[in-house]
Amino acid sequence: MLPGILEQARTFLKEVIPEGGTAVDATAGNGYDTLFLTGCTGPEGKVYSFDIQQQAVDNTAFRLKNAGAEAEIIVSGHEHALHYIQEEVIDAAVFNLGYLPGSDKTVTTTPDTTIMALEGLLKRLKKGGRIVLAVYHGHTEGKVEKDRLLAFSEALSQKKFQVLQYQFINQKNSPPFLLIIEKK
Amino acid sequence: MLPGILEQARTFLKEVIPEGGTAVDATAGNGYDTLFLTGCTGPEGKVYSFDIQQQAVDNTAFRLKNAGAEAEIIVSGHEHALHYIQEEVIDAAVFNLGYLPGSDKTVTTTPDTTIMALEGLLKRLKKGGRIVLAVYHGHTEGKVEKDRLLAFSEALSQKKFQVLQYQFINQKNSPPFLLIIEKK
Repeated sequence: MLPGILEQARTFLKEVIPEGGTAVDATAGNGYDTLFLTGCTGPEGKVYSFDIQQQAVDNTAFRLKNAGAEAEIIVSGHEHALHYIQEEVIDAAVFNLGYLPGSDKTVTTTPDTTIMALEGLLKRLKKGGRIVLAVYHGHTEGKVEKDRLLAFSEALSQKKFQVLQYQFINQKNSPPFLLIIEKK
Repeated sequence: MLPGILEQARTFLKEVIPEGGTAVDATAGNGYDTLFLTGCTGPEGKVYSFDIQQQAVDNTAFRLKNAGAEAEIIVSGHEHALHYIQEEVIDAAVFNLGYLPGSDKTVTTTPDTTIMALEGLLKRLKKGGRIVLAVYHGHTEGKVEKDRLLAFSEALSQKKFQVLQYQFINQKNSPPFLLIIEKK
């Protein structure tokens, strides 16, 4: 079967994160991606995980502890990521855009801060590194965020970046899609 | 690097074509895909290759002969494919939509016959089989064909098919994209 977007997102990430590498989970959420990234970087690597919601940070810390994994979990919006990331170069970053599954649906990522975060992380991205965004756009703010993100991504220099959209188009209810930005 | 659409198209095809399988090149063109498909099915399999242009058929026959490969090359529009295909079930089909590279650009695939061909081949497609379409839409008729194809694909039953769009979105000049239809 064709890989679904969550499985494919992980494939796109894993392909560019070496053991000992540096990766960023820009939206910790329930911590699944943070845990996955620690598996890619291994114990010698470094994973940063950002979220503005205490519940998300707690969930992520709990999940990591249970798995015996470590990451630097930061209670801050991802637009401030570069204030916290020590490494000169990052291998990959992941965003899950929308709201935290199972929580308050009024707290969502927002277009301005998402794009600020992206701009910052793209500067630090290694050549060949990728930022993978899972775009959930079923909610009202999600449609705005989707349109802003697509406009931002389409305008990225073809000389410097490849931007791939990976989307199932015959599903009902605004299914999420992936955007993959790779630095050339 | 992220695989380009031609490389990715072949990956999507190869994954579902077993040795001894049956595959269809709906647009023989210069024969590259026909030759690729014969490599997937192996000598025990069967490849059908359709084109309405004699030049395309000649190019394809020449390419196969040079490689010591065999396919059934048919000078006919792909909308008549089911008249020629003996097998009950096909594993995969590929379409390159647009005009034959290096030839008369006024001869292009057309929306009506493309969709007729698709409808026919989807009926014979095995469970788990795929039809992969590379959609070139830089020319005027190409835009119409693209819109018709997307409308057709988006309307395919989510219970019966997965339809994936694989598209680089920050390239100039209407770059081609892939549609992959997989039968569930």
